Amino acid sequence: MNKLITPRRLPGFLELEPIKQKQFNEMEQKIKEVFEKHSFVPLDTPILEFSDILLAKSGGDVDKEIYRFTKGSTDMCMRYDLTVPLARYVAMNLNELNFPFKRYQIGKVFRGERPQKGRLREFFQCDADIIGNGDLSIVNDAECVSLYKDIFKTLNLDAIVEISNRKILGGLINSLELQKLSNDIFIALDKIDKIGEEGVKEVLLEKNIPAEKIISLINLCKACGNIDEVLSKIENICQDEEFLCGVKEIKELDSYLKAMGLTEKDYIFKLAIIRGHNYYTGTVFEAYLNGHRDFGAVGGGGRYENLASYYTEQKLPGVGMSIGFSRLFDILSSNELLPKVTNATSTVTIIPLGETLLECIALQKILRDNDITTEVSAENKSFKSKMKDANKKETPFVVILGENEVKDKVFALKDMTNGEQFNLDLNGLILKLKQTQA
Amino acid sequence: MNKLITPRRLPGFLELEPIKQKQFNEMEQKIKEVFEKHSFVPLDTPILEFSDILLAKSGGDVDKEIYRFTKGSTDMCMRYDLTVPLARYVAMNLNELNFPFKRYQIGKVFRGERPQKGRLREFFQCDADIIGNGDLSIVNDAECVSLYKDIFKTLNLDAIVEISNRKILGGLINSLELQKLSNDIFIALDKIDKIGEEGVKEVLLEKNIPAEKIISLINLCKACGNIDEVLSKIENICQDEEFLCGVKEIKELDSYLKAMGLTEKDYIFKLAIIRGHNYYTGTVFEAYLNGHRDFGAVGGGGRYENLASYYTEQKLPGVGMSIGFSRLFDILSSNELLPKVTNATSTVTIIPLGETLLECIALQKILRDNDITTEVSAENKSFKSKMKDANKKETPFVVILGENEVKDKVFALKDMTNGEQFNLDLNGLILKLKQTQA
Repeated sequence: MNKLITPRRLPGFLELEPIKQKQFNEMEQKIKEVFEKHSFVPLDTPILEFSDILLAKSGGDVDKEIYRFTKGSTDMCMRYDLTVPLARYVAMNLNELNFPFKRYQIGKVFRGERPQKGRLREFFQCDADIIGNGDLSIVNDAECVSLYKDIFKTLNLDAIVEISNRKILGGLINSLELQKLSNDIFIALDKIDKIGEEGVKEVLLEKNIPAEKIISLINLCKACGNIDEVLSKIENICQDEEFLCGVKEIKELDSYLKAMGLTEKDYIFKLAIIRGHNYYTGTVFEAYLNGHRDFGAVGGGGRYENLASYYTEQKLPGVGMSIGFSRLFDILSSNELLPKVTNATSTVTIIPLGETLLECIALQKILRDNDITTEVSAENKSFKSKMKDANKKETPFVVILGENEVKDKVFALKDMTNGEQFNLDLNGLILKLKQTQA
Repeated sequence: MNKLITPRRLPGFLELEPIKQKQFNEMEQKIKEVFEKHSFVPLDTPILEFSDILLAKSGGDVDKEIYRFTKGSTDMCMRYDLTVPLARYVAMNLNELNFPFKRYQIGKVFRGERPQKGRLREFFQCDADIIGNGDLSIVNDAECVSLYKDIFKTLNLDAIVEISNRKILGGLINSLELQKLSNDIFIALDKIDKIGEEGVKEVLLEKNIPAEKIISLINLCKACGNIDEVLSKIENICQDEEFLCGVKEIKELDSYLKAMGLTEKDYIFKLAIIRGHNYYTGTVFEAYLNGHRDFGAVGGGGRYENLASYYTEQKLPGVGMSIGFSRLFDILSSNELLPKVTNATSTVTIIPLGETLLECIALQKILRDNDITTEVSAENKSFKSKMKDANKKETPFVVILGENEVKDKVFALKDMTNGEQFNLDLNGLILKLKQTQA
């Protein structure tokens, strides 16, 4: 006898029970359909990449979290996002791709951080990006925002996208002659929801920024509403070129979003949206579930100047939207916001009584051919425990097939939800089960 | 300027071009639907597992191929198949699961062997298993074989499953008093297709097995045909208990397969089928594409005595079927046996002429709402190069929207396959595109 090893799973690694996995798969399938309806193509990059490729872009923080190892003489890493592999892919296939290149990818990524509630080491990311060759119209930014609308609609969720453009705040920073502190200012203002105005003031005063300039910056970030409301609040505050470009871009974006049929229920401009990542250079956005702001952003994205500067000299501007798929699924699951599914794996279980197993299997074939999911209770157990099994599995119907029933071609159908019983011929049975099939 | 890193992918790692990825996803979806129709539930175990869990069962050969590494104090491995994680899962969830537990999993597995044609380091495995608690009826073996029929049917492939039962050969080995050499005999006979009868004889003579016993073994393996043909060839050759049990099991299996509607076109008994793996203990089978025997087996599986003996004392017999998904896809793809798909990501591209971009986007919304995949050619390019793009992307239709067309509410639709042009009102346009939508 072997010594037993206690079966256990790595902490922070995904494993859904089958019923949840079904819901997860359905959600994934619905999202894929939205992407394909919007003419995005699927890409499935490897889980592992050469370390020099994967780490070319990453900052120090991510490095520590990465699963990196050597096999033979090869130094490799598990992917920690889907953007770096995309950059590598586009750089490798520049001549074969049609631009703008629209791809989506839903896949696992790996980050070896300390697991905590809501933080996983293995989780699904869901990304859609549009990459241009040289140039890329703002229409594509609108396309990414509009994906959220269609995705949340197909998932029956009520959500809103909050949009800004980093050039507006960047331009104000220029005109206040604070360019050298630009990074600090973005980081501080990104925390305004967490630490409040006073907190931001404190941080920026420590950087020796004059109070009146800080107030200008904070006031800008308070601008929020539809395009006209936001424009009226920031009009004439600045003539910086970058600022004016940002203003032009949000106006343009707004016109495209309206043409796409999005309304004020779907998006709002909010200049406090910054997104942590440094590589966003224009449009930035975050998606929130209405009535569930406490969940935080369930998605986000934006425009970046150059996707693959580490791998090619070709300028590849892009815009992307992302959904933290595992996190969103977890939120929806624990708040019972997912479509209900039954635990049942079948609509009907056929239970043989006496020597009728072959007839049960033949009936199963007929029912399956009629798209009715069917199981035969074939194990060597008592009739009673087979009924108990069917009940435990929440199978809505049971057919009991005894030798008399086989002879008379009559099927005894039991509705397990209310105990009702029907004696039906084959056509009647199929009809009844088809009617009640989910 | 950064020094550029040449973008490259790890050899032996998967990455399909988008059009192939689409075909791959469609194939995966079709297979999933078959599994669910047969009441299997999805499971998605983590990519990484604790090393002691994953290596408990593996032989020395697999060990060398495994991607194993340490992070912090945790020793972990990337999964190299989907069976060991299943064993760990079932052992962990014994009390929650309903038995027989039917699960399927389609996912990537990792084996760091030397990459060569047809051998990948990262590839998709596709498994369905049925696990019993204590006992498991032979009906489940039939269910696994029948999955192949439905899967190949949905993929439009003509295939056959070849079936044996290891107890038959095992029983003959017993009666020849060759038990001690049982493993060597299984291994040698498993190669009969490769090295021929003479090759097998040579190998077994070297093990000092008398020639007449070798002939008996080889003759058994020649038995092939429907159940009656096979039984007539092996009748009375042996009264060993294991042998008789194997014979009883194939008879039983045959009756279930027939009740499931399978015919001689779908399966055949062939006692030369052994399957390399030592852990198969009863039914074994392999699937072949008719007319493409040279591809080798595209799937296989069988019955095992005890799934999770390393993790639990509970006896868990199982039967499983597997498809080498990446390999099958590769074969079908290179032999043009996959359903054709177009390169086009849209049915129609709308090209603005003059200042009509917003109207193009509004039209795109209407067409998408009618389930017509639509793109707007919005980049800052000449009309001519936009037409060229649409052509290169193999988009079947183009709508050219100029200012006059907007005013007159007329849409100029061009069929890119034959150059035909139509002037249509909105309803006419939708109708025409819906008719030709794939």
